[in-house]
Amino acid sequence: MPIKDTVIDIAKKAKVAANELARKSTYSKNKALDLISKRIIQNSERIKEENRKDIEYARKKGLSNAMIDRLTLKDETIKSMAEGLQEVIMLSDPVGEITKMWLRPNKLQVGRMRIPLGVIGIIYESRPNVTIDAAGLCLKAGNAVILRGGSEAFYSNQILGRIIQDSVREADLPEAAVQVIPVREREAVNILLEQEGYIDLIIPRGGEELIRFVAQHSRIPVLKHYKGVCHIYVDAGADLAMAKEICYNAKVQRPGVCNAMETLLVHEKIAQPFLPGMVQMFREAGVEIRGCPRTCGIVSGAKEAKEEDWYAEYLDLILAIKVVSSMEEAIDHISRYGSNHTEAIVTSDYTRAHRFLREVDSSVVLVNASTRFNDGNQLGLGAEIGISTSKIHAFGPMGLEELTGTKFVVFGNGQIRT
Amino acid sequence: MPIKDTVIDIAKKAKVAANELARKSTYSKNKALDLISKRIIQNSERIKEENRKDIEYARKKGLSNAMIDRLTLKDETIKSMAEGLQEVIMLSDPVGEITKMWLRPNKLQVGRMRIPLGVIGIIYESRPNVTIDAAGLCLKAGNAVILRGGSEAFYSNQILGRIIQDSVREADLPEAAVQVIPVREREAVNILLEQEGYIDLIIPRGGEELIRFVAQHSRIPVLKHYKGVCHIYVDAGADLAMAKEICYNAKVQRPGVCNAMETLLVHEKIAQPFLPGMVQMFREAGVEIRGCPRTCGIVSGAKEAKEEDWYAEYLDLILAIKVVSSMEEAIDHISRYGSNHTEAIVTSDYTRAHRFLREVDSSVVLVNASTRFNDGNQLGLGAEIGISTSKIHAFGPMGLEELTGTKFVVFGNGQIRT
Repeated sequence: MPIKDTVIDIAKKAKVAANELARKSTYSKNKALDLISKRIIQNSERIKEENRKDIEYARKKGLSNAMIDRLTLKDETIKSMAEGLQEVIMLSDPVGEITKMWLRPNKLQVGRMRIPLGVIGIIYESRPNVTIDAAGLCLKAGNAVILRGGSEAFYSNQILGRIIQDSVREADLPEAAVQVIPVREREAVNILLEQEGYIDLIIPRGGEELIRFVAQHSRIPVLKHYKGVCHIYVDAGADLAMAKEICYNAKVQRPGVCNAMETLLVHEKIAQPFLPGMVQMFREAGVEIRGCPRTCGIVSGAKEAKEEDWYAEYLDLILAIKVVSSMEEAIDHISRYGSNHTEAIVTSDYTRAHRFLREVDSSVVLVNASTRFNDGNQLGLGAEIGISTSKIHAFGPMGLEELTGTKFVVFGNGQIRT
Repeated sequence: MPIKDTVIDIAKKAKVAANELARKSTYSKNKALDLISKRIIQNSERIKEENRKDIEYARKKGLSNAMIDRLTLKDETIKSMAEGLQEVIMLSDPVGEITKMWLRPNKLQVGRMRIPLGVIGIIYESRPNVTIDAAGLCLKAGNAVILRGGSEAFYSNQILGRIIQDSVREADLPEAAVQVIPVREREAVNILLEQEGYIDLIIPRGGEELIRFVAQHSRIPVLKHYKGVCHIYVDAGADLAMAKEICYNAKVQRPGVCNAMETLLVHEKIAQPFLPGMVQMFREAGVEIRGCPRTCGIVSGAKEAKEEDWYAEYLDLILAIKVVSSMEEAIDHISRYGSNHTEAIVTSDYTRAHRFLREVDSSVVLVNASTRFNDGNQLGLGAEIGISTSKIHAFGPMGLEELTGTKFVVFGNGQIRT
């Protein structure tokens, strides 16, 4: 079958499956998740075998070691995929929840009920575990899902897709509730992005380039995660010991992720007592400092930051530092250079804490806590399917609720409009 | 200035204004709305004068009387625009509301706070009152708005835009919070739809053709309202007197609107006692009936419905009627031919009432009430900016809340991730 027909056929089947799946019980959905979880473990040898084909292919293509590492399914990765599904089983089913209900003067009882979104397309890169994680969350929220992983992970994703479909069928859910696109060519993505008659939402997961490509070519709504240029502002009068711990954690604990701090803003009143010790801690952890002129005047050996440093998502042991004259200057800096991802203030001042929370336009804004908490699990949503950096439909980490919408339900007893 | 530069300049200014507006108080926003409301009344002669230019132009272009009627601003239209703004003043400001708050095991207090979406583009057709209604709602929710009305209403929209900007400025809000595009050419719409760097959301208001055009050309998320092919299903054992009142109201009270009933589904068990009297009522109101073969066997003089009748949004005194063997058949019919807009069941059966509410995939689903209640005001949201028939971000009538998003706010006391 030509690629186009294959993809359209998958999209059509997904839509039919979504209608059926929306009415299925929590019990059946959890049963499917449990079966997938068990079968992943039972079939781990087969999975690793298929995965080795991908690794070989990647080696031949000369992919970097880092990419091959992300691609590789070890026993522990497989185990954590299975455990992830068990965690999703424990989350309460959002579908059917009435989130609000009110009475109208004419005695109509009006409520909002959570419903699945329909068909979700996930477009992702090399990590095959996304196949399982995304399928689990979409299924639990009652959505049919079309998975399109990276071509490097082709064989791994195919075997995982087969395991999922076997389990879904056995749990009496429609088989097409989860489909992995069996096409390596990138053309499949373009065709998928045009199926706005069948697909309700696209979630790309990967680097900025992939996300821009998807956003530009999609006729279907896209939940986007661009970059995380995260800031911490250390206010005058902050508890400096607390500030050091938070800033150190935000930069050093895992520098390669989107919620790590990239720029530190420090109020001029505490720059002198705070920065030398802080920078010393960073240096010991191997962090390179790029400072504004005032920062370079206070700490020795810092590189001077260039304009592009304030925009940079380093994802590495590099930190830009700027001394500011006020919280307003800090907020303005964030508004100009930030990415609406995650921002934190360290302060002891009640009024400024609340003002920072209100005025900073980011998906997660924190007082006296590390930026590293921008994560569905850490914030208490359970597993997440990604982080949205735009405000339509979802902003910040997306859990099960963000994979649903709401409809209005109205209980009447004969009301008509006059 | 070339059209392109004009539009891009407007979009840039809107983004700057949105940042400022997001922090403004409810008091200032209400003051602006009150000033606009008063100035519309004070300037009604000037408004009608500009409106007459549009009417003349429309006559020369040979526009239909119905279109000229929609375009015409009478004293009562102007008064109702002013009153509409007073109603928006009375609605509570959604911005800053914490919709939920919870405590994490590490004592982080996590909440969700409502925030404006940013910049909203409204693309609409001939009715100039949309200029005021949309500006009022967007402003109250803290969003900057770019208005692009129909070219037929060019002069009317320009004068309304000037009145709004004068008021906005006097209330100490950024002037660019509301901008009317001063360009007649359609090219302006295409350019607007490409400004994804500055505009967060597009809401088209008008016929299906306009909405499809916008959805196809936009790089910005679009809230779509396609058509309303609304159904009422009259169940076996329904209170037939109630059913007659509801069906009559849904079809006849205002047949030209999207929440009017277009297809009536009747359970076979009550078709015989129900349909003849019901059809008699419809005939007296001038409603043309197009029935399935079973319907035509029960009532005389009904036209036989063709396949396309089941898809039709008549917006007129025409009604398709089908006799079904079960609620399942009714739901399947709705799922196949419906538009996910508004569906109602008339029933006395508790279990079927709840099942219909759960299983019908429409933005508003009602039990024992007229479909005509799918309306922001009627459902208690206050004024609405339109109805969404897709599930992303909003589904159903969109009030102030739907013009906002949420961010996560986190209150910590030194938490770091381990």
